[in-house]
Amino acid sequence: MHAYRSHTCAALNISHVGQSVRLSGWVHRVRDHGGLLFIDLRDHYGVTQVLCDPDSPVFAQVEKVRSEWCIRIDGEVKARDAALVNSKIPTGEIEVFIRDIEVLGAAKELPLMVFGDQEYPEETRLRYRFLDLRREAMQRNMTLRSDVVASMRKRMWDKGFREYQTPIITASSPEGARDFLVPSRLHPGKFYALPQAPQQFKQLLMVSGFDKYFQIAPCFRDEDPRADRSPTDFYQLDMEMSFVTQQDVFDTISPVIAGVFAEFGGGRRVDAPEAWPQISYKDSALWYGTDKPDLRNPIKMQVVSEHFAGSGFAIFAKLLEQDGTQIRAIPAPGGGSRKFCDRMNAFAQKEGLPGMGYIFWRQAEDGSGMEAAGPLAKNIGPERTEAIRQQLGLGVGDAAFFLGGKPKQFEAVAGKARTVIGEELGLTDKDRFAFAWIVDFPIYEQDAETGKIDFEHNPFSMPQGGMEALMGDPLAVRGYQYDLACNGYELVSGAIRNHKPEIMFKAFEIAGYGKDEVEKRFGGMVNAFQYGAPPHGGCAAGIDRIVMLLADEANIREVILFPMNQRAEDLMMGAPSEPLAQQLMELNLRVIPQDQK
Amino acid sequence: MHAYRSHTCAALNISHVGQSVRLSGWVHRVRDHGGLLFIDLRDHYGVTQVLCDPDSPVFAQVEKVRSEWCIRIDGEVKARDAALVNSKIPTGEIEVFIRDIEVLGAAKELPLMVFGDQEYPEETRLRYRFLDLRREAMQRNMTLRSDVVASMRKRMWDKGFREYQTPIITASSPEGARDFLVPSRLHPGKFYALPQAPQQFKQLLMVSGFDKYFQIAPCFRDEDPRADRSPTDFYQLDMEMSFVTQQDVFDTISPVIAGVFAEFGGGRRVDAPEAWPQISYKDSALWYGTDKPDLRNPIKMQVVSEHFAGSGFAIFAKLLEQDGTQIRAIPAPGGGSRKFCDRMNAFAQKEGLPGMGYIFWRQAEDGSGMEAAGPLAKNIGPERTEAIRQQLGLGVGDAAFFLGGKPKQFEAVAGKARTVIGEELGLTDKDRFAFAWIVDFPIYEQDAETGKIDFEHNPFSMPQGGMEALMGDPLAVRGYQYDLACNGYELVSGAIRNHKPEIMFKAFEIAGYGKDEVEKRFGGMVNAFQYGAPPHGGCAAGIDRIVMLLADEANIREVILFPMNQRAEDLMMGAPSEPLAQQLMELNLRVIPQDQK
Repeated sequence: MHAYRSHTCAALNISHVGQSVRLSGWVHRVRDHGGLLFIDLRDHYGVTQVLCDPDSPVFAQVEKVRSEWCIRIDGEVKARDAALVNSKIPTGEIEVFIRDIEVLGAAKELPLMVFGDQEYPEETRLRYRFLDLRREAMQRNMTLRSDVVASMRKRMWDKGFREYQTPIITASSPEGARDFLVPSRLHPGKFYALPQAPQQFKQLLMVSGFDKYFQIAPCFRDEDPRADRSPTDFYQLDMEMSFVTQQDVFDTISPVIAGVFAEFGGGRRVDAPEAWPQISYKDSALWYGTDKPDLRNPIKMQVVSEHFAGSGFAIFAKLLEQDGTQIRAIPAPGGGSRKFCDRMNAFAQKEGLPGMGYIFWRQAEDGSGMEAAGPLAKNIGPERTEAIRQQLGLGVGDAAFFLGGKPKQFEAVAGKARTVIGEELGLTDKDRFAFAWIVDFPIYEQDAETGKIDFEHNPFSMPQGGMEALMGDPLAVRGYQYDLACNGYELVSGAIRNHKPEIMFKAFEIAGYGKDEVEKRFGGMVNAFQYGAPPHGGCAAGIDRIVMLLADEANIREVILFPMNQRAEDLMMGAPSEPLAQQLMELNLRVIPQDQK
Repeated sequence: MHAYRSHTCAALNISHVGQSVRLSGWVHRVRDHGGLLFIDLRDHYGVTQVLCDPDSPVFAQVEKVRSEWCIRIDGEVKARDAALVNSKIPTGEIEVFIRDIEVLGAAKELPLMVFGDQEYPEETRLRYRFLDLRREAMQRNMTLRSDVVASMRKRMWDKGFREYQTPIITASSPEGARDFLVPSRLHPGKFYALPQAPQQFKQLLMVSGFDKYFQIAPCFRDEDPRADRSPTDFYQLDMEMSFVTQQDVFDTISPVIAGVFAEFGGGRRVDAPEAWPQISYKDSALWYGTDKPDLRNPIKMQVVSEHFAGSGFAIFAKLLEQDGTQIRAIPAPGGGSRKFCDRMNAFAQKEGLPGMGYIFWRQAEDGSGMEAAGPLAKNIGPERTEAIRQQLGLGVGDAAFFLGGKPKQFEAVAGKARTVIGEELGLTDKDRFAFAWIVDFPIYEQDAETGKIDFEHNPFSMPQGGMEALMGDPLAVRGYQYDLACNGYELVSGAIRNHKPEIMFKAFEIAGYGKDEVEKRFGGMVNAFQYGAPPHGGCAAGIDRIVMLLADEANIREVILFPMNQRAEDLMMGAPSEPLAQQLMELNLRVIPQDQK
């Protein structure tokens, strides 16, 4: 017989009754039923009930084992009494009578229990991650992550993509975030950097003629920690294609994402990729107050300025006299009660706005039909109120909320209000993954204070209209740049790249970067573009985020095996740590004492 | 029609004749045949001949294109004249008459040609890697690498393994080589390290109950560059299993390796894994002079001391009077000529030995049958000579070479001589991948000068015989530690791990490491072992090396997309580079000026 196991702890069933078997695993829990010892023996695959009675020659040894000891047992498979069958687990019809036992690894007193659902402080969980990971939810999350990544790979291969590994120890590539640096021993005073993304290398691969690239790529950014962000590294499904348009990229990656969500979504509905809307950045902001809308929520905001211009509601009427202002309505079907409307108004105040005006429609008490309620309705009068109702398509029992000002100032709160309204009114379908491509991102943005023009996103996207577009108003230039939003998160981001050196230099010039600086910052890629660059584009999908959505977890550390804590420390392994003097010497570095800063 | 292509450059054949098509790709070469312009248009998939005659409205534009310009053409597919069919390529039966052309990316004057086989200095190739990678051999190597890795993944999944990603920014793990350090911004004066291998994490995964782990894992070692080693990072197929014996690991990984070699070996013979010998470290040194023998070479060395002890060959006879000495023979079937024997003798001298004695057997000139020739035969006389011949199983036309001394002193040269003899005599079967598991590595070695006992390999292996074995002579302790050798290279290395804290501490104690130091160096893992560790083991296979063997390349940079040069620099991307003062300040570091060292 094998030294450790003839079967896993999920393998035995009624067909094995009478067989001598060997199992190895962890003691999930021990129960003493009147001298009879029951052990739930657990391994990666499942749990088998094993037991020992006082007549057994190894009873004394079995009596000693404690939770989370790793043991090997030999024994005979017996059928359970019909009354004791556990139909919830595959091994629930049998139990194994222990004949022999070997302790493979004993355990000290446990800082956290594997059995049960007790909550522990995150620091405890991370310090004893090897125990925490034994818990059922963590085993499930980690195998889910592994299976999601495997599925992505298979789907990309099926589409004719090959995975290529790009360098991890490489050059600094200033893409917005802070680089992690790696001092060079052979070149004193010089540093490598870990890639924030394989952006330049994947574009170089296209210039090298590889046509279709993907990579499950580790990315490194030295960012301040946040609940939904790993403070050191994260993974993305990175892809790039040559000779493609934006629609080709969508047609390629959409079925991959949809397929993964259908495969691992646990039955939650996934819209077919053909039905994913393409929404312009501008419309998304207008309708949803964000560039990552949650389309499970059917609420769509509308501009209703005309109904307030010159109206009796002086605040809005005066506001609209200023340039660039707007009144926007959030329709709230089913929200037609004063209580609800007041709560939402309070929400807006909590978010820092003066409040949200509202109107709601109810059955008139005198039986005369519908009436509009709320101070706003009184101020603007019945005609305007009715026009608003008709524009928004609302009726009895519904409400509408109103925000006004410059869109940039209220849009974010409007978006949040839309989310809260959708949630509270039960309009948001929780059993669905709703996707939309957000397109036509502006290439540039203007700093409100300095007036300086800078890249809105990254500088690698091709402007729609090419060189000609760059000759006009920079703020009007849209890029072939896109995001995929799902349930309020940005899952994918990408672009058709600017592969023409002259357009690239012009684009940088508008943002205030001279040719020299471009060559210094992106020299590798810009140089390559001068030797026959193909048109190309691609995108990157955030793997941690996708797994979080599928696992229904709000904290990124629930889907990473050995994450850093929020202070970017690994307490289990002791990272970061003091270097040896010898190491610093080899690297030609000195640490500046804190009091000399 | 699609903006860039209706077909790839490998897709068109006789069935497309008459169709209007659109192709995009690079100008591989242009030929002018009496005013008629022929362009080999190349993409990742193949080459299509496109042509343009002076009557074409776009002739003037086509005339301008040069090698490696990226272009898009529209045209009509026509059948080639029978005499002009090129049966070597899939598109060889057709050509496309250009009707329209668009330059997608022009190219400056080329620092290296993609077409043809011209050799360029490595610095040129790496600086213009994006052009170098367009060359046929590089496209082949990189797609081979990608396909090999994909195949490994599929084979591991099929065996029930899941891929788990372990941290890249982590703690220093002193495993022999030098760590790359990453300064922490949030913790001034502290550093992370990049993992030399995921060794501790994969063992922690076993303690966490994941049962079967693999990863195509990037590994980082700050080593001085060498032709067959990347100076920064390399990839391994890393795997680990719980509840297994050494044989289980062999049974799992051998078919994966054999399968990959059969799939990508281009028809070279791959021995079935069941036939792979298991050779002890000791026997391997004895028979082959190395722990990574090339078994394509049938020569097996033998100890022949007895025939020289007290013989008339004084050098060997006296040598054998010293403790620990030995005479070893390298049989050389077919090497029976003075010329060959002298050449091998000269080889040994070049390698720093006094020379190799030899005997060869020939037909006696007087027709009296076989005679042994060479000074050695004369010295020891016919009886001993004949005994040697019989032991080695040699005959007319064969030779044997002899080396003597302490094995450690001559073994390496003996191994090299065996290789050269096998090559020169054509005994080594070049069309074969010959594998062997080398087992029973010693746990410890003794420093010849200081007498100090240290770990021979890594400190994580389980000693055969467990705690009991550690109570005896340390140098006699063998580990459950193994390598897979193939054609003279170490492809895989692994062990059954020492998962028992008390045995681990004892093992370290023998090598002079106290409990405190062990806890400091390997604290994460050692701590985990005290909470129910399962027996486990695994191995890691070098991916760069495997691809080198399959691609028949001697330089590792031929199988890596964007390798560093031998000074650990990336000239294309400009790494490493000077950091900004701001970056050093954030990291709390100061570079020590060279003159202050």
